[in-house]
Amino acid sequence: MTVNDRTNPPDQTPTTAGEATTNDAMPNEATAKPFEIGLYSFVELTPNQATGELLAPEQRIRDFLEEVELADQVGLDVFGVGEHHRPDYVSSAPAVILAAAAARTKRIRLTSAVTVLSSDDPVRVFQQFSSLDLVSGGRAEIMAGRGSFIESFPLFGYDLQDYDELFDEKLRLLLKLRDEEVVSWQGGHRPAIDKLGVYPRPAQERLPVWVAVGGTPQSTVRAATLGLPMALAIIGGNPAQFAPYADLYRRAARQAGHDPANLGLSLNMHGYVAENSRQAGEDYYPAYSLMMNRIGRERGWPPLSREQFEASRSLHGANLVGTPDEIIERALHHYDIFGHDRFLLQISVGTLPHAQVLRAIELFGTEVAPVLRREIENRQRVRPESR
Amino acid sequence: MTVNDRTNPPDQTPTTAGEATTNDAMPNEATAKPFEIGLYSFVELTPNQATGELLAPEQRIRDFLEEVELADQVGLDVFGVGEHHRPDYVSSAPAVILAAAAARTKRIRLTSAVTVLSSDDPVRVFQQFSSLDLVSGGRAEIMAGRGSFIESFPLFGYDLQDYDELFDEKLRLLLKLRDEEVVSWQGGHRPAIDKLGVYPRPAQERLPVWVAVGGTPQSTVRAATLGLPMALAIIGGNPAQFAPYADLYRRAARQAGHDPANLGLSLNMHGYVAENSRQAGEDYYPAYSLMMNRIGRERGWPPLSREQFEASRSLHGANLVGTPDEIIERALHHYDIFGHDRFLLQISVGTLPHAQVLRAIELFGTEVAPVLRREIENRQRVRPESR
Repeated sequence: MTVNDRTNPPDQTPTTAGEATTNDAMPNEATAKPFEIGLYSFVELTPNQATGELLAPEQRIRDFLEEVELADQVGLDVFGVGEHHRPDYVSSAPAVILAAAAARTKRIRLTSAVTVLSSDDPVRVFQQFSSLDLVSGGRAEIMAGRGSFIESFPLFGYDLQDYDELFDEKLRLLLKLRDEEVVSWQGGHRPAIDKLGVYPRPAQERLPVWVAVGGTPQSTVRAATLGLPMALAIIGGNPAQFAPYADLYRRAARQAGHDPANLGLSLNMHGYVAENSRQAGEDYYPAYSLMMNRIGRERGWPPLSREQFEASRSLHGANLVGTPDEIIERALHHYDIFGHDRFLLQISVGTLPHAQVLRAIELFGTEVAPVLRREIENRQRVRPESR
Repeated sequence: MTVNDRTNPPDQTPTTAGEATTNDAMPNEATAKPFEIGLYSFVELTPNQATGELLAPEQRIRDFLEEVELADQVGLDVFGVGEHHRPDYVSSAPAVILAAAAARTKRIRLTSAVTVLSSDDPVRVFQQFSSLDLVSGGRAEIMAGRGSFIESFPLFGYDLQDYDELFDEKLRLLLKLRDEEVVSWQGGHRPAIDKLGVYPRPAQERLPVWVAVGGTPQSTVRAATLGLPMALAIIGGNPAQFAPYADLYRRAARQAGHDPANLGLSLNMHGYVAENSRQAGEDYYPAYSLMMNRIGRERGWPPLSREQFEASRSLHGANLVGTPDEIIERALHHYDIFGHDRFLLQISVGTLPHAQVLRAIELFGTEVAPVLRREIENRQRVRPESR
């Protein structure tokens, strides 16, 4: 693959991931983990499409921290913050933002989504998320990815030719830092470490490290082989087309000696919830299309039409934009396909009015999540043999 | 100088900084800034000397965040967090810890103390503290230093032979990142940057950058020449012996075209406050001597005797350990010598029982700080001609 197709653009159809059926390795009842539901954000900063107003970054962060606080209050399980190095995103240092969120929340898990590990130093990343783990009382996670956006490569002096090698090497170092207090390590993209301790150690015995993939078999197999939970970003196309990645992941995990039931699989998707379906589309489309078209122009995707958008929020689309019932229907449809353990929704792809985001979080936490959890538990109970 | 004397050990006497008298450049009334009083910590983690108990890092951080919260509540102006990469300190990622503190405080300024800039990437540092500035509503500062402890050099692959050159180059890049949104830069110790923007931009128009010095004329002149506020760490000897650094700083600033009255000078010192003087010494000595002797062994300093400690907390010593009245007396004595603008105290050099630290912060904020501010304001009013 080339760097430019490293995330699935709107119409990408994955074709090479494998043939197994998706029910192949769904977790059995004994080991089924409670299904986790959460949100993620890149703390983007785009103008209000009705008024033209662009928030000050300080205001955007203030709004954002209220979003996380509310997500915690309504009982969502996870909140993720991504990393971008552009003027239209406020989040280049996820651990710092998450630490502020940690102090204002009690139960919600806090993860990067993603840490662009390829262009960072795993030692610093570990130290920051270990510190986050301490200030949050053991709620930190790292979701590492190769980077969908590539602006961090020139900024930190990395060569895009090393795109995959960088990630591979740094991921392995990160795992070593997590598993050993005193580390010796040598590689090609970071100075060697000779029997040095890395501190602080986290509150959790092992800091969870997820691998985020955008639809590349190679990344999928790596996550599985390392026995790491995988987050599959599906932000375009028909989600069912990504099922082969879940199969590939589970087969590769088993092949490497890991029981897939003990790992984790997350779907990370775009979406929004409102009381009525038409309003959901009206609220969501302007900021969403602004941002997707901005990114699309950079990557050579065609502009998004309103018709395409409406199609993308049907049952077979990747945008979960609708009423609570519609979101539940789609998420259960995805569960039946993927048998995943976690579902994360990115509500503000472009900056939405704060009140709308808060209302969407409230609906997601109070009307979508409880039903989804119950329905998935039922499915786990009534059809254990299929898993 | 060599790396091993990079901070003033207990008996160091500075000798080469200059000859001017210290009243030479005290701020005049018109430009006098309100005197700032604060605390700093490395979030050290040493056993309780009475019980042998070593806190879990998570508990130490929890205690620490309560310390900052209280410091804010009692009206202190600044809280600093240092950077160490050792098992006996929990703080290797100051911005992350400060971000958690930001969410729990309202008014207190939050600074690193220090960021070991020599072994870090100024771009990451800027992004983290800019993010901290956003989550704190404009209360972030960076205090950059060459690193008193040197464990970060091998960990991040730097050569101690480049000790000063690294700092110099990285400090200049940090200032460039602060002053320009889109940066082009080339140097010897970090990949070049070719017209790239660095985000997020902070809430404050300019993120304050202080330079911390341990007693080296070269560092003093650099801070002054760059027009940066300087924090002078005095943790041993007779503070009056460091006066020449303040003079050198002001002369060098003027020589470079900066009015010293517009810059800032901070004294960073060790100390502790309790209701009675004997108790202050009893509380403070065990943990303090444990940590100072641990560091001393690494650096070849002789062990600290109780007699030396008692001498060090006299009027002419560098340890501000005593009653509120004693601290006020010493701090005013220092003000008469240095005419500085900020005074930061490190209370827990080794880990003290949490209740003692909280009580010391309360006394420092409610009994020391208000008197100190008033007395210094009086001095500024009655003797403007001497400044």
